[in-house]
Amino acid sequence: MNTIELITKKRNKGTLSKEEILYLVNSYTKGKVPDYQFAAFLMAAYLNGMTKEETADLTSAMLYSGKVIDLSKIAGAKIDKHSTGGVGDKTSLILAPIVASAGIYVPMISGRGLGHTGGTLDKLESIPGFRTDLNLKRYKQVIKKCGAVLIGQTKDIAPADKLMYSLRDVTATVESIPLITGSIMSKKLAEGIDGLVLDVKTGSGAFMKKLSEAKKLAASLIDTAKSFDKKVMAFITDMNQPLGNYIGNWLEIYESILVLQGGMVDDLNEVTFSLSGAMIMLGGKAKSLKEGIEIAKYEVKTGRAFDKFLEIVRLQNGDISVIKNPQKYPKARYSDEITATKSGYIKSLDNYEIGMAALELGAGRLTKDDIINPKAGIIFYPKIGSEVKKGEVIAKLYTDKKKSIDSAKNRISKSIEYSKEKTKKVKLIKNILT
Amino acid sequence: MNTIELITKKRNKGTLSKEEILYLVNSYTKGKVPDYQFAAFLMAAYLNGMTKEETADLTSAMLYSGKVIDLSKIAGAKIDKHSTGGVGDKTSLILAPIVASAGIYVPMISGRGLGHTGGTLDKLESIPGFRTDLNLKRYKQVIKKCGAVLIGQTKDIAPADKLMYSLRDVTATVESIPLITGSIMSKKLAEGIDGLVLDVKTGSGAFMKKLSEAKKLAASLIDTAKSFDKKVMAFITDMNQPLGNYIGNWLEIYESILVLQGGMVDDLNEVTFSLSGAMIMLGGKAKSLKEGIEIAKYEVKTGRAFDKFLEIVRLQNGDISVIKNPQKYPKARYSDEITATKSGYIKSLDNYEIGMAALELGAGRLTKDDIINPKAGIIFYPKIGSEVKKGEVIAKLYTDKKKSIDSAKNRISKSIEYSKEKTKKVKLIKNILT
Repeated sequence: MNTIELITKKRNKGTLSKEEILYLVNSYTKGKVPDYQFAAFLMAAYLNGMTKEETADLTSAMLYSGKVIDLSKIAGAKIDKHSTGGVGDKTSLILAPIVASAGIYVPMISGRGLGHTGGTLDKLESIPGFRTDLNLKRYKQVIKKCGAVLIGQTKDIAPADKLMYSLRDVTATVESIPLITGSIMSKKLAEGIDGLVLDVKTGSGAFMKKLSEAKKLAASLIDTAKSFDKKVMAFITDMNQPLGNYIGNWLEIYESILVLQGGMVDDLNEVTFSLSGAMIMLGGKAKSLKEGIEIAKYEVKTGRAFDKFLEIVRLQNGDISVIKNPQKYPKARYSDEITATKSGYIKSLDNYEIGMAALELGAGRLTKDDIINPKAGIIFYPKIGSEVKKGEVIAKLYTDKKKSIDSAKNRISKSIEYSKEKTKKVKLIKNILT
Repeated sequence: MNTIELITKKRNKGTLSKEEILYLVNSYTKGKVPDYQFAAFLMAAYLNGMTKEETADLTSAMLYSGKVIDLSKIAGAKIDKHSTGGVGDKTSLILAPIVASAGIYVPMISGRGLGHTGGTLDKLESIPGFRTDLNLKRYKQVIKKCGAVLIGQTKDIAPADKLMYSLRDVTATVESIPLITGSIMSKKLAEGIDGLVLDVKTGSGAFMKKLSEAKKLAASLIDTAKSFDKKVMAFITDMNQPLGNYIGNWLEIYESILVLQGGMVDDLNEVTFSLSGAMIMLGGKAKSLKEGIEIAKYEVKTGRAFDKFLEIVRLQNGDISVIKNPQKYPKARYSDEITATKSGYIKSLDNYEIGMAALELGAGRLTKDDIINPKAGIIFYPKIGSEVKKGEVIAKLYTDKKKSIDSAKNRISKSIEYSKEKTKKVKLIKNILT
């Protein structure tokens, strides 16, 4: 096969065969197709799109560029969840123990913070000692023992994705539904799952700002999962404001502990229990989503979910004393407050700016080599539709970098639009697709 | 400026400013933008196009990546011609001496054979001793002395084009009107010209197979020339069959000598005198194209054009004895003939195949490193619309590679479609655009 002819075919809006896609991805991964040719291919694919079959073939080529973990020796359903990322989105931390506690295996390979969004790995690593770099042998041991495991992508898993992602990042070919689908699904399918629940975020704090785009991505992810005979269900959920009130790595662990101990954080609970319920249903332990949600709530109520969280942390080398006594965790050096500048109702937020403010305070990376400060972040209280009074504290900031405070405060203050009239609360779960 | 943002802008069908295009081209030429980013940009530009202004700005950036030759000290009009390339297209060899002889300066930077098409430099180098690698000082001396000079692109001339062309070649981004325009015009504008006559070929032996595409390219080239305040005129001419009867490097020099000595080769003469007439008109020595053509014919008739050719060859170090006595030129080791397989009329030819047959015989390069055989080529007699009799010799083949003969014969024979009914001759000059 000839690389130039394959680029030409996609450039001319042609459809590539499974063999042609495999040739391109494999040759690129092996270094036989240079970056510049693959970049031209990516841009042609970005602009001319890929069919459902091409997307599945791309995912397959990326998946089989590496190891596919075999969990068939573990009897029982293995169900994971994937979120497209957002601000304050800590559902993985809560649902993994809940679902494992309900008897479903949760093999989870997660990512790090990207841009203004947080990453499950960074959050877990704020727990002293917690290891996310388990090898595949240990991965299997942990999931077998406690029913859940949360690690990072190893170099064995979908190496094509790692190379392609780096290239997409610098060639303006990130926001492409088939390319995003291949990237997400190749990693998820490598975990050894039977089913997958998707949380596709939409709104100002999401990568897919528009609902229509989020729906397209969800449909593409569902099609691809089905072509691999996986059970699948997708939720399109709101990301126009932080999920829960805590943003930042340890702060999100803290809020997760609150929920696992039976605390109520309205929006966070709604999304987490819905996703958990769907996982329990796909795993065959509930006949309906509603029943799944009831089971999830029951696992929290009995305390078993929190115990499962402690077990996961312990098996992954984490210090469970800070989970049991979160107030022991060291505090950030500086803190500050933001107060409402007007009395009225919250009309809208720019959630991207809130995410960027947390990042500036130290909760994320501005460059690849930045080190995350686990204590940094924001507690943001009001929700769209809430009533606030002038002077009321609406957010608290935590950081070790004093000079980042002004900029973060400014970003947050500017991100809030007030209204004298009562404003509508946001509908959290916008669509459920299967 | 940020390269990713500029790629994104073109990807999103945006229009780049002069500064943005300059930044991209300059940074790429200096090695500050890597191949893979420029490849993504090229594909985005290929698929989303560029405006008239962007094309002019691209041309300007490519032009000023190198030296622009200053011929202002030479009093008199400097007019060049550019052809988009074809099979048997030897007009440059004939019109340069004609136009110079009529008192117009012809500064010509030419190219080599590309794919199935021949190149002026390769043809000239079939003359023993002929040097096409003059430096810029000698370039100015030769044109000042005899009114014409024919050299190859030096590394000082539009270095951005050389880099971009190599990258386009391997990223399926060659056939783009704005990118072709930038490539052609950046080199032509560097010559120090006042005006340019364009010969945009269309048909099976051209790069622009369709007339509509040829018209678009001609319009783009004209717009760009005008934006640089150059006089310009474009001919769209037929390339569904070889121009003249001789194809191959020395064979084309030979046919050029025939025409310069007053010989009649109907189609070749029509195109060459039209282009020459246009150059003479743009150079201010004729009031109309018709008058320009009369002057061109007169320069041949008086023998001055042939003398001018001898002078150019001599000044560029070529052996004029073979020009004066072409029969002295060494013959190819092998020759063969093709005869008509049917009696009737020639309905169509696949001129690409005839060009490829000549290339296989040794007249062109299959790979970059192939050495051209100046003696190799084809004499192809019939024209579309001609009557032939079964068994009549329609082509002669010349080569030093015996084993190439069968394939070349096969290509040529297959390229001919016969008809029992009388068929129409081809209209040679399809459009004249200004």
